[in-house]
Amino acid sequence: MNFGVIGYGYWGPNIVRNLASLEDTQVLEIADVSPSARKRAHKAWPGIKIAANAADLISSTEIDAVAVVSPVWTHFDLAKAALENGKHVFVEKPFTSNAAQGEELINLADKKNLKIMVDHTFLFGSAVRKISDLLSEGTLGRLYYYDSTRVNLGLFQHDVNVLWDLAPHDLSIMDYLIKATPEAVVATGQNHLNGCEDVAFMTLYFPEKVIAHINVNWLSPVKVRTTLIGGEKRMLVWNDLEADEKIKVYDKGVKISSHEGVYELLVNYRSGDMWAPHLDQVEALHQELSYFVDCISKGHQPFNNGCAGLRVVKMLEAASESLSKKGSLVYL
Amino acid sequence: MNFGVIGYGYWGPNIVRNLASLEDTQVLEIADVSPSARKRAHKAWPGIKIAANAADLISSTEIDAVAVVSPVWTHFDLAKAALENGKHVFVEKPFTSNAAQGEELINLADKKNLKIMVDHTFLFGSAVRKISDLLSEGTLGRLYYYDSTRVNLGLFQHDVNVLWDLAPHDLSIMDYLIKATPEAVVATGQNHLNGCEDVAFMTLYFPEKVIAHINVNWLSPVKVRTTLIGGEKRMLVWNDLEADEKIKVYDKGVKISSHEGVYELLVNYRSGDMWAPHLDQVEALHQELSYFVDCISKGHQPFNNGCAGLRVVKMLEAASESLSKKGSLVYL
Amino acid sequence: MNFGVIGYGYWGPNIVRNLASLEDTQVLEIADVSPSARKRAHKAWPGIKIAANAADLISSTEIDAVAVVSPVWTHFDLAKAALENGKHVFVEKPFTSNAAQGEELINLADKKNLKIMVDHTFLFGSAVRKISDLLSEGTLGRLYYYDSTRVNLGLFQHDVNVLWDLAPHDLSIMDYLIKATPEAVVATGQNHLNGCEDVAFMTLYFPEKVIAHINVNWLSPVKVRTTLIGGEKRMLVWNDLEADEKIKVYDKGVKISSHEGVYELLVNYRSGDMWAPHLDQVEALHQELSYFVDCISKGHQPFNNGCAGLRVVKMLEAASESLSKKGSLVYL
Amino acid sequence: MNFGVIGYGYWGPNIVRNLASLEDTQVLEIADVSPSARKRAHKAWPGIKIAANAADLISSTEIDAVAVVSPVWTHFDLAKAALENGKHVFVEKPFTSNAAQGEELINLADKKNLKIMVDHTFLFGSAVRKISDLLSEGTLGRLYYYDSTRVNLGLFQHDVNVLWDLAPHDLSIMDYLIKATPEAVVATGQNHLNGCEDVAFMTLYFPEKVIAHINVNWLSPVKVRTTLIGGEKRMLVWNDLEADEKIKVYDKGVKISSHEGVYELLVNYRSGDMWAPHLDQVEALHQELSYFVDCISKGHQPFNNGCAGLRVVKMLEAASESLSKKGSLVYL
Repeated sequence: MNFGVIGYGYWGPNIVRNLASLEDTQVLEIADVSPSARKRAHKAWPGIKIAANAADLISSTEIDAVAVVSPVWTHFDLAKAALENGKHVFVEKPFTSNAAQGEELINLADKKNLKIMVDHTFLFGSAVRKISDLLSEGTLGRLYYYDSTRVNLGLFQHDVNVLWDLAPHDLSIMDYLIKATPEAVVATGQNHLNGCEDVAFMTLYFPEKVIAHINVNWLSPVKVRTTLIGGEKRMLVWNDLEADEKIKVYDKGVKISSHEGVYELLVNYRSGDMWAPHLDQVEALHQELSYFVDCISKGHQPFNNGCAGLRVVKMLEAASESLSKKGSLVYL
Repeated sequence: MNFGVIGYGYWGPNIVRNLASLEDTQVLEIADVSPSARKRAHKAWPGIKIAANAADLISSTEIDAVAVVSPVWTHFDLAKAALENGKHVFVEKPFTSNAAQGEELINLADKKNLKIMVDHTFLFGSAVRKISDLLSEGTLGRLYYYDSTRVNLGLFQHDVNVLWDLAPHDLSIMDYLIKATPEAVVATGQNHLNGCEDVAFMTLYFPEKVIAHINVNWLSPVKVRTTLIGGEKRMLVWNDLEADEKIKVYDKGVKISSHEGVYELLVNYRSGDMWAPHLDQVEALHQELSYFVDCISKGHQPFNNGCAGLRVVKMLEAASESLSKKGSLVYL
Repeated sequence: MNFGVIGYGYWGPNIVRNLASLEDTQVLEIADVSPSARKRAHKAWPGIKIAANAADLISSTEIDAVAVVSPVWTHFDLAKAALENGKHVFVEKPFTSNAAQGEELINLADKKNLKIMVDHTFLFGSAVRKISDLLSEGTLGRLYYYDSTRVNLGLFQHDVNVLWDLAPHDLSIMDYLIKATPEAVVATGQNHLNGCEDVAFMTLYFPEKVIAHINVNWLSPVKVRTTLIGGEKRMLVWNDLEADEKIKVYDKGVKISSHEGVYELLVNYRSGDMWAPHLDQVEALHQELSYFVDCISKGHQPFNNGCAGLRVVKMLEAASESLSKKGSLVYL
Repeated sequence: MNFGVIGYGYWGPNIVRNLASLEDTQVLEIADVSPSARKRAHKAWPGIKIAANAADLISSTEIDAVAVVSPVWTHFDLAKAALENGKHVFVEKPFTSNAAQGEELINLADKKNLKIMVDHTFLFGSAVRKISDLLSEGTLGRLYYYDSTRVNLGLFQHDVNVLWDLAPHDLSIMDYLIKATPEAVVATGQNHLNGCEDVAFMTLYFPEKVIAHINVNWLSPVKVRTTLIGGEKRMLVWNDLEADEKIKVYDKGVKISSHEGVYELLVNYRSGDMWAPHLDQVEALHQELSYFVDCISKGHQPFNNGCAGLRVVKMLEAASESLSKKGSLVYL
């Protein structure tokens, strides 16, 4: 399978390296508008054609699939052109700038019988895989809340705010783990420097009293990547910055009991062992791209397809609307 | 100075112990409706009168000041009776169940020339004192955000939700440090067990783009007490669970520069040393009660007076209203 | 049962408080040569007789047992006098200043049919109890090593060096857990301030290739209380400064396999889950004193008796000899 | 400058990559006896000649310098042959298997006017550079102790024990920082699996009461890379596993004062701020190789030359002798 890669900035080199390492897969062309990016690409991959313009790559008859690794506002046009030219599309998150664009791409791909995969990389890492298993097996019991913090200093984006930059990670993971659609969203935040919000907080109301919260911040002196997930039976903490023991499962909880004739509910705490399951060392992006090639070959629909990307975009759109109204409730 | 103490549950014993250790100050009577609390009080303080009812204590002519350390819904009646009987009042946080009660108590105390102190204990600890100094000296520069997380497993309250239980700590600290009044509040949350919210998130909009956020949770498997404060010049992290190095000041920041004729703003990161100032080991409650006695003796108004307590209650009221509407913006 | 307590410095108040809280047990007299210690004792325990001299307490016919909580060099004389006066003896660690003294006390107690307990408090805490269970159940497999670090800033002792001050904790725990006698000791160290070693390192060779190492230091800027225990099947880390999760058991290990005809051994690593068993919150000293009273009542020999204390003293003596020769091997 | 690289196992690829990235420097040939290593080398560097045997590379007239990145026991023969053939030599640590070999190589290089650099990579990292500056500037005051722990699970070596495998890092850093020669060494340890010590402890006595201690262990469930350095004025902790704040300087200390007529010395503790200096992100190996090329060009003697390598080998030899006698004092 032959790939063209559009965009060789921060993430593009990882896409090229991983595609190049897959068997029976090669990158035929890389396009980037920046001369310095093209220079870097040429030095690292002397055997690959490098272009300033993506037009050739998109219309090339040799290329089967295109990876769109360029800024968000370019996703729709590039992905649309690639699909129209019969290419499968791997596109960076967030999928598109708005839901309408996402829907158009999904419809186009369906009509053309082509695959779209949105790069929700974390879903292929061993931590999210393990949490997904724990939830499926009922280890945590009924879900209470999902609370994620993703803060650090920069990188400031000029075209999107901190929600569109950082929250897609959390939203795609949350969407994958909770397996339900939020009913409503509240987002608050503030911009301090260049007109884009650099600090933002997002609450998502799910059915059955499940609540999710996401804290993203470009102005934090320390890097935090921590998610708390509380369930009826057990609770877990996922700290993605830990070298080992990224996931800790706590056999802790609360039980409500009410005795006959007793008006007041009795709350009992339960405190047991903690357990950190062993996680395999895998490169998530490698797994994801290998799965993409596999889905194309076998004609399968990837689970992180355009629809998954669209769900995240819809949440971001609702959050943006709420944010612009300083936190009003927006139904999805 | 002679004290009566109403309430000998979780916090009352600390009040009694600290009052007893002050020079020229003694506790003459303790009242608690619970027989087991009275039994504990009697064992620990054989020389102090113990009563089931607070009426005697409140009307006693020997008692100068009353500490109200009972549930929130009892604060108003007890404090009012004490003031009417000419007693100074030290009252647990939150000050009252609503703003109207707080205002009435403040007016009553003013009329009677009595002092009210609301037990915002953290303001007397060395960490908050140090942060206050750093802010006053301009070490952080212009403030960007205040983001606090206060989560752990329980204790569940039956009469108040997690906001009224845990957020008063954060709100009183924030009020003391930011020295400005929030314009509006957004609160979200969920109840899972007994009808009271056990998970809640609060955003406060301040003038000049300062934003505050508070995350409180009774259902967390791990205990977290962390506050991030971001400023234009420096940022700090206060982790109250650290034995040493509770406060870390980061010489990190972001600078926006714009060159003539350049449309795009340039964001530059700055990364320097970290510094953890030495904090004295003090018992905050001891400092606070000593200051209360001093304020009474000298006729000074304590900075954590009824007005400070009222400001916190107003924020809680606004948050409750927002929470009941699933997060709508409530102006203060 | 009636106790006399000799010594009311740093640890004495804890002994008195715990003895006083035991049922059917009371402290009749406290003796301390220091006027300020006597003043503190009197304030805290107005009902207990306070004396400068221990002679009365030792000869009192009302007192059944004596707790010796004074400096090491006084242990022998005080304990001997107490035993000669028919008192059971609870004595601070290290048991005595040398092995000969320890042996004499053990013999005297045997002859008089009295009990000696040496205050190896850690053996009654939930962490050591749990590790002991894990070792007994074979969770770690055959033991490889025991490596403990106990460092912090001060407290400097004037009469003993850092080995005699801090290592008795580690040696008593190690003795309890390993259940074997070391064959030889090597100790190195250095004094920098007042002639007593303030930094010291100790290696103990046990049978069957078990090795123990102890690192003690009065001049460390950070406090560390960490023990690594490596076994054939699993390994554990005990960090006593963790609020929760003091013990972490790692399902990690190494396997040696040799193939026929292959000269080189093959070492394989195994990496599995980590597990932090829940530990009950108990006050070790309370458990220990309760056990002491129980042993006396029932005529049982406590496991932390004079012989246990003597084993630790013998290791300290051997270590001192090695230290004075800058690290030569000393057989026990 | 043209390099030949002997050995393409774990570390060799880093040497090749960094040499290739230097300006005016290229790798002309890589030699490795292992077919799989040669295959990897060929794939990564299609333009470089790959050989099984180092003979050609050593005698090549095009090659100016040889990097010896093969097992310790091969260092002497390969480095000697390279020097005899007029090549400068960059050699992996530890320099040689014994001191006699090291001395012969140093003499040979001197006679031939060639440079030897021993790969003490850590000396070029920003952490060691910063500590060196702090010591030179007198920030810590007179040195008391150096205590390093370097433990983890594996990698087991078949030809050397854990001391020769891990301690060269610590010894080279210590040698660079302390700038004095130890007078004597004590080493203890134990082998559990394949006849080589897998756990070892080393004490080094320096003049003026400076003491160093090194704890190395292949059988630890957790990875630790921590060094404590105590001085008269301040103390520091270097934790190389921290992403940020690798070095923390503590303004803590102890002061001895003696009053006239007072027999007992008074020890006072001093506790002040902690400070974590900002460290630049540099690749130590890149700095080191660039410095090597620079030393050759300018005819300078590198500070990590054969003599520095020899000092470490002498300490290892003394430690091995002590270890074989279970810890006897060996003078250097």
